[in-house]
Amino acid sequence: MPDTIYQSSTTAPVNIAVVKYWGKRDPKLNLPTNSSISVTLSQADLRTHTTAACSSKFTEDTLEINSKLQDVSGVRTQACFRELRSLRSALESADSSLLKLSTLPLRIVSENNFPTAAGLASSAAGFAALVRAIANLYELPASPTELSRIARQGSGSACRSLFGGYVAWQMGEKDDGSDSVAVEVAPASHWPTMRALVLVASAAQKDVSSTSGMQTTVATSGLFPHRAKVVVPAAMAKMERAILEKDFATFADVTMRESNSFHSVCSDTQPPIFYLNSTSHAAIRVVEGINKVAGKAIAAYTFDAGPNAVIYFEEENKDSVAGTVQALLGGLDGWKGKTFETQDTTKLDQKAVGVLKEGVTRVILASVGEGPIKTDESLILATGEPVNK
Amino acid sequence: MPDTIYQSSTTAPVNIAVVKYWGKRDPKLNLPTNSSISVTLSQADLRTHTTAACSSKFTEDTLEINSKLQDVSGVRTQACFRELRSLRSALESADSSLLKLSTLPLRIVSENNFPTAAGLASSAAGFAALVRAIANLYELPASPTELSRIARQGSGSACRSLFGGYVAWQMGEKDDGSDSVAVEVAPASHWPTMRALVLVASAAQKDVSSTSGMQTTVATSGLFPHRAKVVVPAAMAKMERAILEKDFATFADVTMRESNSFHSVCSDTQPPIFYLNSTSHAAIRVVEGINKVAGKAIAAYTFDAGPNAVIYFEEENKDSVAGTVQALLGGLDGWKGKTFETQDTTKLDQKAVGVLKEGVTRVILASVGEGPIKTDESLILATGEPVNK
Repeated sequence: MPDTIYQSSTTAPVNIAVVKYWGKRDPKLNLPTNSSISVTLSQADLRTHTTAACSSKFTEDTLEINSKLQDVSGVRTQACFRELRSLRSALESADSSLLKLSTLPLRIVSENNFPTAAGLASSAAGFAALVRAIANLYELPASPTELSRIARQGSGSACRSLFGGYVAWQMGEKDDGSDSVAVEVAPASHWPTMRALVLVASAAQKDVSSTSGMQTTVATSGLFPHRAKVVVPAAMAKMERAILEKDFATFADVTMRESNSFHSVCSDTQPPIFYLNSTSHAAIRVVEGINKVAGKAIAAYTFDAGPNAVIYFEEENKDSVAGTVQALLGGLDGWKGKTFETQDTTKLDQKAVGVLKEGVTRVILASVGEGPIKTDESLILATGEPVNK
Repeated sequence: MPDTIYQSSTTAPVNIAVVKYWGKRDPKLNLPTNSSISVTLSQADLRTHTTAACSSKFTEDTLEINSKLQDVSGVRTQACFRELRSLRSALESADSSLLKLSTLPLRIVSENNFPTAAGLASSAAGFAALVRAIANLYELPASPTELSRIARQGSGSACRSLFGGYVAWQMGEKDDGSDSVAVEVAPASHWPTMRALVLVASAAQKDVSSTSGMQTTVATSGLFPHRAKVVVPAAMAKMERAILEKDFATFADVTMRESNSFHSVCSDTQPPIFYLNSTSHAAIRVVEGINKVAGKAIAAYTFDAGPNAVIYFEEENKDSVAGTVQALLGGLDGWKGKTFETQDTTKLDQKAVGVLKEGVTRVILASVGEGPIKTDESLILATGEPVNK
């Protein structure tokens, strides 16, 4: 067995929060100042594919993303490696028949099927896939919630990508973070008709990283404590109920308010952080217009730490929502050949329509989807080399 | 005396808040949810000139602004007319030798020396001038603070334009608004070296009026109550002390945080209100750059309900602040022939510099200035006709 390559592969999904995570009460352990909720998007549309391998043939732990070697010395990656090895090591101690995989160097190879820098929460899918792949390699009997405690230390929102469907990250109370984990609010099958349309506003790297941005907000925003203590707990309760009752109007209302609240504490930061640009503002006005025409909330916008709009809607309203956007942006990439019933766009804010047409570079269509899926498709050859080399 | 034209003229200043007014606890009486503080700008640069006349020759109350007749039937204008007439009427009742001016129709003619729609608080200067001119015409023995109670009912922030220098609008506690008045924090002579540079980003009318916008914020923003109850009271105390101690670093810090806090509750409104645009964001980055180069806060940005930046600085830093902006925008109107020492702008965010150059249409230079000034220059002829007819 000396030069054997042990390996396991998985895919993991992107999640887009509808109650937002922004602020750490413990930056080292990635413990948040408030709970959050997200929708997991289908991996056919957006996913990270990761193979974890270990072998005495390897000389050191390595991580490669989209064919680029990454620095693994950071505390976040180290925390994930350490915690997973520790769980494997405990198994090995209890059962001497087990191979001592925990002592072997790891080689992780990962690929995203979407642009890393597009502000699409690639680190969430990435760390979820990394943790899930190593857990599979080590044959850990850990539940997704147990693994979420580890993935959280890689990237906070990664903990939510260990589940499909509708997922809550409970902030927890303990200093050691053991109760700051992700749980399923409802599986994708509970409310399978949820759709997301991403309007990619720019593939430029963001000015302020979420990691440094959120801690500047915690340190300087006068409005932030009220958001963490009062606004988010109320939003969490409303959102959980909306999901359980499949109440889209409430889901939409909370989603849009939460996005606005999050970006408001960003702009209340000193110096202010502006993730939304004129394209984002235009997307908001167009969604408002779609809802006005419909006479009720059938579309909900949300923005992460970047200008891309994610528009949630239900399958039954695909023409009114996606059809309206397609009438404006039908020439862009990302529609995957789908054609929606074209809509009258004359009632929309025409200034916003003009800005949107100029500022969106591509769209991505997705559905609510499943959590990490084990796959036989490997990114590491039997020789131990990455397949793309 | 039947056809005599009685008249009196005044000018009144614009004020730019450094602790912001946003939200009414009583929309009818214009009673605010929080106190505010402003700096009064010099009337040589920005002013409303108003003549108030009354005569039995007139058939009804009229108000003309920049040669356009206005509707005077609104509750705000009516409240000002009613309260001022009531004070005059009390004088007439007490002293039968006084002319019964309170019974005569009023003709008000007003002119701004700046574009009304540029988002430069024209209603504040306008109502302050209207109230001050009628009070002079009626020879009311009322103090500026007493008149501020009336001007407040015309336009909230107008109450602060009845004073020069540094002015607080105390929100008051009473239901009838009798204690919601403006007071002087310090006269202009206390800190005469304060300067303001306005970057006019657009002369377009704003999308959402402050009147309707602020009440939507009060009704829908989850962060707003915390701003009104916690953030602003702390800012008021800090700002008053900064003004009394002429502590520019604290003045700048509170001014910028307050502007950001105000615009953050605007964007936390449902639907969100965005007064800042990319030009405004660029102005913020340029001010941050000026302060970074100086190694301390020598410039402070603030934005009212529109995209124009107002940059406060002290005379001693005019070259570092106005000189830097002039190096970028020297070709625009509004420098009044003033030339500042040109500055190295290479350390500024060059993307922001580009956006600023493209988005600013003119500048206005101003100093801290005096309150309303009585003038013999009349806008109404001896015949009772406006001079410009």
